[in-house]
Amino acid sequence: MARLNSRIHEVVVTTIAESGQPHSAPMGVSEVGGYFHVKPFQPSQTYDNLKRTGQCTLNFTDDVRIFAGALTGHRDWPTRPCNKIDGVYLTAALTHIELKIAKIDDIQPRACFYGELVAEETHAPFRGFNRAQSAVIEAAILASRLQMLPAEKIQQELAYLAIAIEKTAGERELEAWGWLMDKIKQAGINIE
Amino acid sequence: MARLNSRIHEVVVTTIAESGQPHSAPMGVSEVGGYFHVKPFQPSQTYDNLKRTGQCTLNFTDDVRIFAGALTGHRDWPTRPCNKIDGVYLTAALTHIELKIAKIDDIQPRACFYGELVAEETHAPFRGFNRAQSAVIEAAILASRLQMLPAEKIQQELAYLAIAIEKTAGERELEAWGWLMDKIKQAGINIE
Repeated sequence: MARLNSRIHEVVVTTIAESGQPHSAPMGVSEVGGYFHVKPFQPSQTYDNLKRTGQCTLNFTDDVRIFAGALTGHRDWPTRPCNKIDGVYLTAALTHIELKIAKIDDIQPRACFYGELVAEETHAPFRGFNRAQSAVIEAAILASRLQMLPAEKIQQELAYLAIAIEKTAGERELEAWGWLMDKIKQAGINIE
Repeated sequence: MARLNSRIHEVVVTTIAESGQPHSAPMGVSEVGGYFHVKPFQPSQTYDNLKRTGQCTLNFTDDVRIFAGALTGHRDWPTRPCNKIDGVYLTAALTHIELKIAKIDDIQPRACFYGELVAEETHAPFRGFNRAQSAVIEAAILASRLQMLPAEKIQQELAYLAIAIEKTAGERELEAWGWLMDKIKQAGINIE
């Protein structure tokens, strides 16, 4: 465990396409030395938009449907205009921040955009950890790696994650979990 | 999955003992029909304090050391006075709420205290999900059930959780994880 103190947070990065359409993508970001590090893969729409516009929104949301939806074709989430950048934030964000890109490491396979905070707004309070929300995040990561993992490992980890869903989920978490399980079944993996 | 919409959040419940000492205990709470349901086991100090004082604080914190610390003898966290009740909140709370108990189901093994919100204060923003924080919460639950679970199951689940620690932890998460691993090793369970 050699990494030092660069905790990675799973957030939703919203950028604006050349057409003017907002594009939201879940991503792991960290805050180091006063910059938020946003590291999209190349090529990707987030990479293109960040490079062209030099700005983005980070949405800190506990609505796990947005994470599961990005993998399962549910991408149309309500937004509102930003305060200091030419962009939008998700209305589902508990807090959002607006970043201007100060520097780019334009490397493969993931570029690193160094974002400077120019605005921050809190819309709703954090209500504590929810094990089902964490289970959806983990299941989304599994669902994005179906080709790379043995079916048995996926089945075993889903069986473990399902316990937290059963014990602690609300409606949003059940909906997100359902989307992911449909996707995994459609990939031919046999789950309960 | 028969439960309906009562999402359970892992929070820290702070009550005041007869001596005047604050007592903080991690617990799963839900919000149903306008009440926060706080369900301590009987007997327990939280149960006694709630029954005697009729009030408590819910701390919504992302500092997982407080959850791991409750199982490993690290319980001395800084507090500040509440606004509307005779109590304290944890300075590590991103948001805290103050509850007055409106009703009690005084049943075994877990009583249900129905808390009415009388004050709420946000101190710091939510920064998004962190997989390492979730892994510490899951490991804390495992560590509290060492007598009930086969060693092999504990080893297997910890190996899975360790991946998120390695990839996404910051210092607080590494510290909390270390406390839990020490406890599990001391219980004679062989882990890496």
